[in-house]
Amino acid sequence: MANITKKVSWSSRADESGATGEGTPLLNGSEQPRHSRQLSEGRSIFQIGRLSTVDLEEEITSDEDSLRGRPKEIPHNEKLLSLKYESLDYDNIENQLFLEEERRMSHMGFRCLEISRWVVCGLIGFLTGLIACFIDIVVEELAGIKYQVVKENIEKFTEVGGLSISLILWAVFNSAFVMVGAIIVAYFEPIAAGSGIPQIKCYLNGVKIPRVVRLKTLVVKVGGVICSVVGGLAVGKEGPMIHSGAVVAAGVSQGRSTSLKRDFKIFEYFRRDTEKRDFVSAGAAAGVSAAFGAPVGGVLFSLEEGASFWNQMLTWRIFFASMISTFTLNFFLSIYHNKPGDLSNPGLINFGRFETESVAYNLYEIPLFIAMGAIGGLLGALFNVLNYWLTIFRIRYVHRPCLQVMEAMLVAAVTATVSFTMIYFSNDCQPLGPDHTEEYPLQLFCADGEYNSMATAFFNTPERSVRSLFHNQPGTYNPLTLGLFTLTYFFLACWTYGLAVSAGVFIPSLLIGAAWGRLFGILLASITTTGSTWAVPGKYALMGAAAQLGGIVRMTLSLTVIMVEATGNITYGLPIMLVLMTSKIVGDYFVEGLYDIHIKLQSVPFLHWEAPATSHWLTAREVMSSPVTCLNRIEKVGTIVDILSNTSTNHNGFPVVVQVAGNDEPAKLCGLILRSQLIVLLKHKVFVELARSRLTHRKLQLKDFRDAYPRFPPIQSIHVSQDERECMMDLMEFMNATPYTVPQETSLPRVFKLFRALGLRHLVVVDDENRVVGLVTRKDLARYHLGKHGLEELQLAQT
Amino acid sequence: MANITKKVSWSSRADESGATGEGTPLLNGSEQPRHSRQLSEGRSIFQIGRLSTVDLEEEITSDEDSLRGRPKEIPHNEKLLSLKYESLDYDNIENQLFLEEERRMSHMGFRCLEISRWVVCGLIGFLTGLIACFIDIVVEELAGIKYQVVKENIEKFTEVGGLSISLILWAVFNSAFVMVGAIIVAYFEPIAAGSGIPQIKCYLNGVKIPRVVRLKTLVVKVGGVICSVVGGLAVGKEGPMIHSGAVVAAGVSQGRSTSLKRDFKIFEYFRRDTEKRDFVSAGAAAGVSAAFGAPVGGVLFSLEEGASFWNQMLTWRIFFASMISTFTLNFFLSIYHNKPGDLSNPGLINFGRFETESVAYNLYEIPLFIAMGAIGGLLGALFNVLNYWLTIFRIRYVHRPCLQVMEAMLVAAVTATVSFTMIYFSNDCQPLGPDHTEEYPLQLFCADGEYNSMATAFFNTPERSVRSLFHNQPGTYNPLTLGLFTLTYFFLACWTYGLAVSAGVFIPSLLIGAAWGRLFGILLASITTTGSTWAVPGKYALMGAAAQLGGIVRMTLSLTVIMVEATGNITYGLPIMLVLMTSKIVGDYFVEGLYDIHIKLQSVPFLHWEAPATSHWLTAREVMSSPVTCLNRIEKVGTIVDILSNTSTNHNGFPVVVQVAGNDEPAKLCGLILRSQLIVLLKHKVFVELARSRLTHRKLQLKDFRDAYPRFPPIQSIHVSQDERECMMDLMEFMNATPYTVPQETSLPRVFKLFRALGLRHLVVVDDENRVVGLVTRKDLARYHLGKHGLEELQLAQT
Repeated sequence: MANITKKVSWSSRADESGATGEGTPLLNGSEQPRHSRQLSEGRSIFQIGRLSTVDLEEEITSDEDSLRGRPKEIPHNEKLLSLKYESLDYDNIENQLFLEEERRMSHMGFRCLEISRWVVCGLIGFLTGLIACFIDIVVEELAGIKYQVVKENIEKFTEVGGLSISLILWAVFNSAFVMVGAIIVAYFEPIAAGSGIPQIKCYLNGVKIPRVVRLKTLVVKVGGVICSVVGGLAVGKEGPMIHSGAVVAAGVSQGRSTSLKRDFKIFEYFRRDTEKRDFVSAGAAAGVSAAFGAPVGGVLFSLEEGASFWNQMLTWRIFFASMISTFTLNFFLSIYHNKPGDLSNPGLINFGRFETESVAYNLYEIPLFIAMGAIGGLLGALFNVLNYWLTIFRIRYVHRPCLQVMEAMLVAAVTATVSFTMIYFSNDCQPLGPDHTEEYPLQLFCADGEYNSMATAFFNTPERSVRSLFHNQPGTYNPLTLGLFTLTYFFLACWTYGLAVSAGVFIPSLLIGAAWGRLFGILLASITTTGSTWAVPGKYALMGAAAQLGGIVRMTLSLTVIMVEATGNITYGLPIMLVLMTSKIVGDYFVEGLYDIHIKLQSVPFLHWEAPATSHWLTAREVMSSPVTCLNRIEKVGTIVDILSNTSTNHNGFPVVVQVAGNDEPAKLCGLILRSQLIVLLKHKVFVELARSRLTHRKLQLKDFRDAYPRFPPIQSIHVSQDERECMMDLMEFMNATPYTVPQETSLPRVFKLFRALGLRHLVVVDDENRVVGLVTRKDLARYHLGKHGLEELQLAQT
Repeated sequence: MANITKKVSWSSRADESGATGEGTPLLNGSEQPRHSRQLSEGRSIFQIGRLSTVDLEEEITSDEDSLRGRPKEIPHNEKLLSLKYESLDYDNIENQLFLEEERRMSHMGFRCLEISRWVVCGLIGFLTGLIACFIDIVVEELAGIKYQVVKENIEKFTEVGGLSISLILWAVFNSAFVMVGAIIVAYFEPIAAGSGIPQIKCYLNGVKIPRVVRLKTLVVKVGGVICSVVGGLAVGKEGPMIHSGAVVAAGVSQGRSTSLKRDFKIFEYFRRDTEKRDFVSAGAAAGVSAAFGAPVGGVLFSLEEGASFWNQMLTWRIFFASMISTFTLNFFLSIYHNKPGDLSNPGLINFGRFETESVAYNLYEIPLFIAMGAIGGLLGALFNVLNYWLTIFRIRYVHRPCLQVMEAMLVAAVTATVSFTMIYFSNDCQPLGPDHTEEYPLQLFCADGEYNSMATAFFNTPERSVRSLFHNQPGTYNPLTLGLFTLTYFFLACWTYGLAVSAGVFIPSLLIGAAWGRLFGILLASITTTGSTWAVPGKYALMGAAAQLGGIVRMTLSLTVIMVEATGNITYGLPIMLVLMTSKIVGDYFVEGLYDIHIKLQSVPFLHWEAPATSHWLTAREVMSSPVTCLNRIEKVGTIVDILSNTSTNHNGFPVVVQVAGNDEPAKLCGLILRSQLIVLLKHKVFVELARSRLTHRKLQLKDFRDAYPRFPPIQSIHVSQDERECMMDLMEFMNATPYTVPQETSLPRVFKLFRALGLRHLVVVDDENRVVGLVTRKDLARYHLGKHGLEELQLAQT
């Protein structure tokens, strides 16, 4: 562990060329005079318990190649906090350039900006809707072909014997699709795996997950989700829509694509974290809205996951994007379904129409619903625990892309085999109704005019299966079918989540829940003699679906609203809320939500809503990183280059201090500057040659920073000659002159609240003379969490 | 204007008894040495343009008797900002006592607190639902009696002639009810007038409106709203529910009633602004939820109006309260309606069921809806402008309670007369349908088996009228009826809002909108030959209602969701949103929303979401109040009493400074203490007699502060003897040791964001040596707003 501290004499440094003491690393960090007039460079004095491994290059170039070779980097222990993630800055960097621009802008200018924000949100909604529509249509078509071929094959061989050929055909079909999906994910863009919701949660929380909002990710995501759904995996296409919406938003709002090397020179004002985050919120909301036909649910999802500061106009814009998205999807799907103008298909999944008469619930059913919530919580916790172990196993042993592809193919084949076996051995025959709601009824060994009811559940896209469980007449399924289906699908879904394919967990959860919920309803009806009138199985299927989904993902208000909107019926609001609340409480008792587990396994420094309740005894002094690398307002280029190149420094923000001229007092804080800003300054050679006292550069503008955003080059790519190293850099214009500060005695909850509410990235801790004593960053706050035995502190790791 | 500045020598003051210079007001505020070692007391140097009138007693005792004699205090000009309102402090005062308590509390303790928060929210929901239920049933019963009597009377006199007697009977009935309602409001609790939504908006925004959440207010509100609705005014009972819910919340959460002098000794932890605000949010949401059967809409209303910082658990609790409230109302109403267990009456108003088939809209209807939005915006703006002038008129001339009662009675009589005249001269007879949906069909001069259609609109509670406009068959109303009805009801409603009765504007707005919307639909159908199939009048009535309501109140997301939830049909989401958006944009072009107008007319320092866009050129230095009255950490009692008693001081918070011992340097900021805390300290005589160096008091606990909350006694009520004046007070334990600070150069938007996001009350401005140079409070920020000609600054006034 490097323990390098540089001695810097502040008084000599501000006015002269600052050569004294520079570049002479001393190995004592404790020699700090009383007035701390010597600040230490290099935040490398890790506190006991923090791990510090080698590849610090990683930190700087994390944007480029981290997460690629996944296994190396993901720690096997969720008790770690990775240092490799950068934070996003949701606080405007109010430097002189920024303020000048804002001051120049007229009232009309701001109004135009506002209008363009609306336009961007409309575009986001439209494109997200289009993507959802594309996915839906392609999946429908491909799955239709697949099921038709397999169905014909099964029908051919049912009489003849030799159904094993059908099985093989089915399994090969599935594996082939899944293989394609897994290859593009595992080899081209591993970040596109899974639903993407954990990643978007992190992004909205303020953690920069590399490559999460890139065009390539979107392409792989869309391709991958089509393949995995058509490949018959126990997955849904809804979760990935949220990620897709976010990528669309990040792309559209920046008015350029770095991947395609196209810059449309529009929306340049939005090229910073603050604005981009707002648009990504809108994109995620549009995604939810397209997936579930739930515009309000989408807005609430974004707010629940992302927003710390509620802003009326922003919310309204997010809602607009959501509405446009669901409308677009609706409109194009209505054309696809040959019913143009019929806007009754609001989302990728909709739960069908619940008639108010048949669904009214009674007061005495509420305890039953709550019991179902508890079951959902238990099953959800079991699901999460199993998936947790599986994920750990995958991190350790299944980390090479080819292994990942093979595992995905295996799961696909097993899914097909299990489904086929279940259908084969089931003898639950049901008469084909006159309305013929089944898309692909398999007759198999049933009598003519009948179909195999197990096949409706397995031989179908999961969305359709959910709908039949909600709406089919009582008596359509027998209890054994449902029980077996629940059991197998539970384990299949659990195995599937976390594969290197892009797919969501919403629909499988709903399906599992709907199955056991319906079972619950049937059993209820059978134990009460007069039961059949009230225990409508469809109603219990819906509650079961809510309970299971709630038990797995543990979302609160947004999930309630999503469920209500997808149901299209407000009557169920209260029971759904009670069910979700119960399942969350029960589930939380055992283990966290699935997304949170995956976030923790990635060691992401995720900030929750509040500081742990029992953390009042901690103050900024204990929490902060110290000593801090500070820069002088007029700093030598060489020093800056050295600091930025120092692989043991991993800060991305540096307090700027100033020496009161002709005064012996210690240096005061006067601003804060980011690594990325310094890099742009170095790249443009914004140097002052003191000897000749002239500027060697053109005046830098905000545009230069925006052009470099968000992929700032690493320091290694910038060449600084020996002469230039002797020049000075005036940071005055570029630093944020009014960073937020707190005194050392501030309690952790107070620091946390400030940090979280304002979306900060760096918070400077000062003493009562306004001298820098430390710096609080996201990692310092995310480190503390409430464990079983009170407050625990996570270890920091470079991995 | 007093311009008093005291010279205080800091160096002599901290250790000695600080007698030098005390009480010798000098008239120069500019004699400030370079290091500002002499801070000035009394923030009385009003900047040019600020008005400062006499009664400053008012400020301190504002809790007691302001707003009582309304006319004196309400300035006639909305370009003023009143100084009489105190702010609420949504930032925890983290002094030593607080931190000690938090540190003592175990993990279990925090969990119990969390549970009691849920219990309180459940109670709030339950009680709010009960109140809604009570209002509804009483109104139904009383209105039923009234309409029955009048109907019989009319029927009696229709044949005989002498309908003028019926008119007089009707008018007398109405006036009598309204008189009772107006008397209790005007004489007992003027704050209960109107819907209470502006007041709750202010409360949630952080402004302490005196007596707004008291039990007495609730009682008067409930009584008042029953009287005004039964009295046949053009009002609704929905708005007041929001206020009622908020009062319930404020009461329940504190575990005591100061009015009833009962203290249940529970929930003492919640006795501070932060916690109370959260509960009041829940109460307001529960109120909306009960009023419209819109639990999600309620949550969004609370968030839109109140929350600045979104917290998942808080939102979930608010949602819980909303759900319980609508459930309670539903449950008891179902019993009242003899259909126990049927939970299909979710709110006081519900728009009835829209069948999905009949309501599907087509793409080409969207421009029509947008046009309706524009009309709604225009009509809404007209409504607001008229009401604005009327309010100004009322402030000037109708300010004595007896005049207010007379005006209310006049309006009631005129409403009855106009209604009667309209019905009398209308010859729009409609056949009585087989389903007989009309509650009180007036035959009047129609043939047998027919009824007067104008009477359905007028001779009915407004809720029923709205529902018939939405759902009656096409052809039920003829265009002339609707046109006349719209016109008269528009002016009646406009005249009514602002009367000294407690009543809301939601229902009248909906009714006006539904009327012209239906008219719009009928006209559309008549100009297109094949129109009758698509232009379902009920659909246009709904859109018209949304447009009109949006044009008047200008709420955004919450209103959309409320409308959708009240409709019970999600299909209408997009058109309702488009309509509301259009009406808001069009309306905002002319004038602000009705609630904002009334808030402005009360000169409340209301903080909007963001600082005005063009305010980047302002910095904390320009914005702050300065000089600031500071206290020493160990301060003489006499000084404190003088400062608090000084009628020209109107600050409620004082920075505490400390002198570095034996050092010649200027004093540094070390904390912040509130007037209310000082008062409690003085009351408990927490003095240190330096001479004998012993404490003369028992150790003060947090409980002492909580017992005094929120009605702290005025300084005048506390007697301090001459001996005690010479004692010292050690503020160390009681001051907030880590107040938020900003440097002087911070731009206004940045200050604003910090202030608003954290819900601050005082923000200390310091120089780069951490010395106090100014204080930013709510009034300093609310002062700047964007007018027609760019940034404008409001004047501050004591009135």
